[in-house]
Amino acid sequence: MKSVVTLLTDFGTADYFVGAVKGVILTINPHVSIVDITHEIPPQDIEAGAFTLLTCYRDFPAGTIHMTIVDPGVGSTRRPIVVSAGSHYFVGPDNGLFSYVLDREPSPQTFHVTAREYFREEPSSTFHGRDIFAPVAAALSKGVKPDQLGPQIENEVRLPLLLPAKRPEGKVEGRIIHIDRFGNCITNLTRADLPETEGKTLLINGTVIKAFRQFYADEDGSENQIFAIWGSAGFLELSVSGASAAKLLHAKRGDSVIASA
Amino acid sequence: MKSVVTLLTDFGTADYFVGAVKGVILTINPHVSIVDITHEIPPQDIEAGAFTLLTCYRDFPAGTIHMTIVDPGVGSTRRPIVVSAGSHYFVGPDNGLFSYVLDREPSPQTFHVTAREYFREEPSSTFHGRDIFAPVAAALSKGVKPDQLGPQIENEVRLPLLLPAKRPEGKVEGRIIHIDRFGNCITNLTRADLPETEGKTLLINGTVIKAFRQFYADEDGSENQIFAIWGSAGFLELSVSGASAAKLLHAKRGDSVIASA
Amino acid sequence: MKSVVTLLTDFGTADYFVGAVKGVILTINPHVSIVDITHEIPPQDIEAGAFTLLTCYRDFPAGTIHMTIVDPGVGSTRRPIVVSAGSHYFVGPDNGLFSYVLDREPSPQTFHVTAREYFREEPSSTFHGRDIFAPVAAALSKGVKPDQLGPQIENEVRLPLLLPAKRPEGKVEGRIIHIDRFGNCITNLTRADLPETEGKTLLINGTVIKAFRQFYADEDGSENQIFAIWGSAGFLELSVSGASAAKLLHAKRGDSVIASA
Repeated sequence: MKSVVTLLTDFGTADYFVGAVKGVILTINPHVSIVDITHEIPPQDIEAGAFTLLTCYRDFPAGTIHMTIVDPGVGSTRRPIVVSAGSHYFVGPDNGLFSYVLDREPSPQTFHVTAREYFREEPSSTFHGRDIFAPVAAALSKGVKPDQLGPQIENEVRLPLLLPAKRPEGKVEGRIIHIDRFGNCITNLTRADLPETEGKTLLINGTVIKAFRQFYADEDGSENQIFAIWGSAGFLELSVSGASAAKLLHAKRGDSVIASA
Repeated sequence: MKSVVTLLTDFGTADYFVGAVKGVILTINPHVSIVDITHEIPPQDIEAGAFTLLTCYRDFPAGTIHMTIVDPGVGSTRRPIVVSAGSHYFVGPDNGLFSYVLDREPSPQTFHVTAREYFREEPSSTFHGRDIFAPVAAALSKGVKPDQLGPQIENEVRLPLLLPAKRPEGKVEGRIIHIDRFGNCITNLTRADLPETEGKTLLINGTVIKAFRQFYADEDGSENQIFAIWGSAGFLELSVSGASAAKLLHAKRGDSVIASA
Repeated sequence: MKSVVTLLTDFGTADYFVGAVKGVILTINPHVSIVDITHEIPPQDIEAGAFTLLTCYRDFPAGTIHMTIVDPGVGSTRRPIVVSAGSHYFVGPDNGLFSYVLDREPSPQTFHVTAREYFREEPSSTFHGRDIFAPVAAALSKGVKPDQLGPQIENEVRLPLLLPAKRPEGKVEGRIIHIDRFGNCITNLTRADLPETEGKTLLINGTVIKAFRQFYADEDGSENQIFAIWGSAGFLELSVSGASAAKLLHAKRGDSVIASA
């Protein structure tokens, strides 16, 4: 089986960063398939990186190595780590990026990467993506095991859970956790929070949403109607057919979404 | 011969959509080469997707599978289809995306994809790219034949032809069909419409263009002169050396371009 | 060893240009690994292309073919060239793109590509990336040697050197040569210009910078302090933790940076 290494970063695609990382990986293992998930995580936005990783890592083959870099602490004392979870590997800084994976997967293992023989010689203090994470990802792709890279640890940095909050009178308060290219507003509400949507309403920024739909396309002609829909990542989304729900709702990440009892 | 799967979508590159699609394909066939054509088709702009596909599909090896997704009707009754044409395969929604390929290639065949055993289990109603089109493209890359995927159909959805219109006094009226990154305005005029350019003029948005050139570079020093040129996709383009013709002409897609007799 | 072909262009990623180039390469050599360095070099900005190439080409495996296209003179008399330098190959127009590589590598060799049998049939005059450079890069990846492509030349077009200038009283005057996604301002000052930073100051746009740091992260809490740091490409950068130094300094490429004696 050919190894897959995915890249998920806030590097953007206009600089030399992504090229350098790929060059280092291919120099160590020319037989790897490198897949860009995205490089457009907003600069230093760890929460956005963690969310994007959560929504797609399971679509990749078992054994995939997910190199995930949003790293405001590069060069400081924050630890480089490797997580082994759900038949996947995750390589990156210990700053919460892997929180949602760790929350979801049974018995994940985390290792503090200390084996400098797998780093590039004389790693820079500003580009660990190239000098530490890329060679470590390449080493994993060649069969190096996580426990060869350093000691197992238990105290990884974690982001707050994605769980919504219980409110009085049976209400549930979630929040917008992502807005996608089409203006769909993804909430942190899951089917476990709202097992039944019949008769429920959602309140966001003063707008009450009563419609729940099965798909985006507007076949009954009700234009600009905002509706809720179970999205492809398993979260409830607020959408509108052919337009941006985020614009219509003046919504941004973090905004509260209250589901009625 | 290694299979190539191209991706041409309106997914953008900031979300998890492209990563998810690639993960699904590589899980089914790790030996495929996945090539991004673009993910920046304007959201839900079928015509733009159809044009971009037209301009480059023939540059790929015979047998290439072009997964093309601009899909405002996802989840509704619009059909998933596979087109076999000109030694290439095309996978996507039946909404006109493959019109220009179907117009150009002799004896294309279209199949309505109904064989759910090639879909992901329990496909979502919002992300057929991941749950239907990616696994179908991967199946084709492993040798599944289009007629194993469903019945042949004859009534695909078609966009209006790219043909310009004949006007009185021998004039030809075309239109801007694309504006590229450099501000070149690509028209739907081909050499068949204008076999001879000597002495011809073009009228667009009140500007008369008399110059026809062989290449972009401005070696005679005439700055900001808008000229016409046969572009690399076989269409007549309006260009200016070192600047954006679209800006100078206030041109947008759909604008009329009238060629004199 | 599997061949790697990198692409570094100003094509953007919204048009069909990148897809067409990849299709042509894969048609000639399906076993090559194609890696995008970037396609977001500002349109026709040769200097930016040359800088980005400089900062990452050495991270790729020996034998990598770097196809580099920023080509305002496409179709004119400017020559297509192949450079062999430092165990890498470089393919592109002769307009200065490879200057910094030629400046750095010992005994580079440049060849004027004239062997039309390696071009696409009837190459267009507007898209040499697809019709000349892609097939030539693919030919190199299959083992064709540079001297089979045309005669060696000595008079490549060169950009001005990246060297800073010596100023009176031991000062050194450099300039901003790149601003990255994070707002870091990369100068052309290297350790050879500033072997010792202790006690030095930098002057840019009226701001005096006294701090030199080892890494970006701000662990002492001094917010919005602009500092200098040796960046990952070997140049001195001006940075600020968690914000854009370019914005704070109103800096743009070309701005003067004067280091005190």
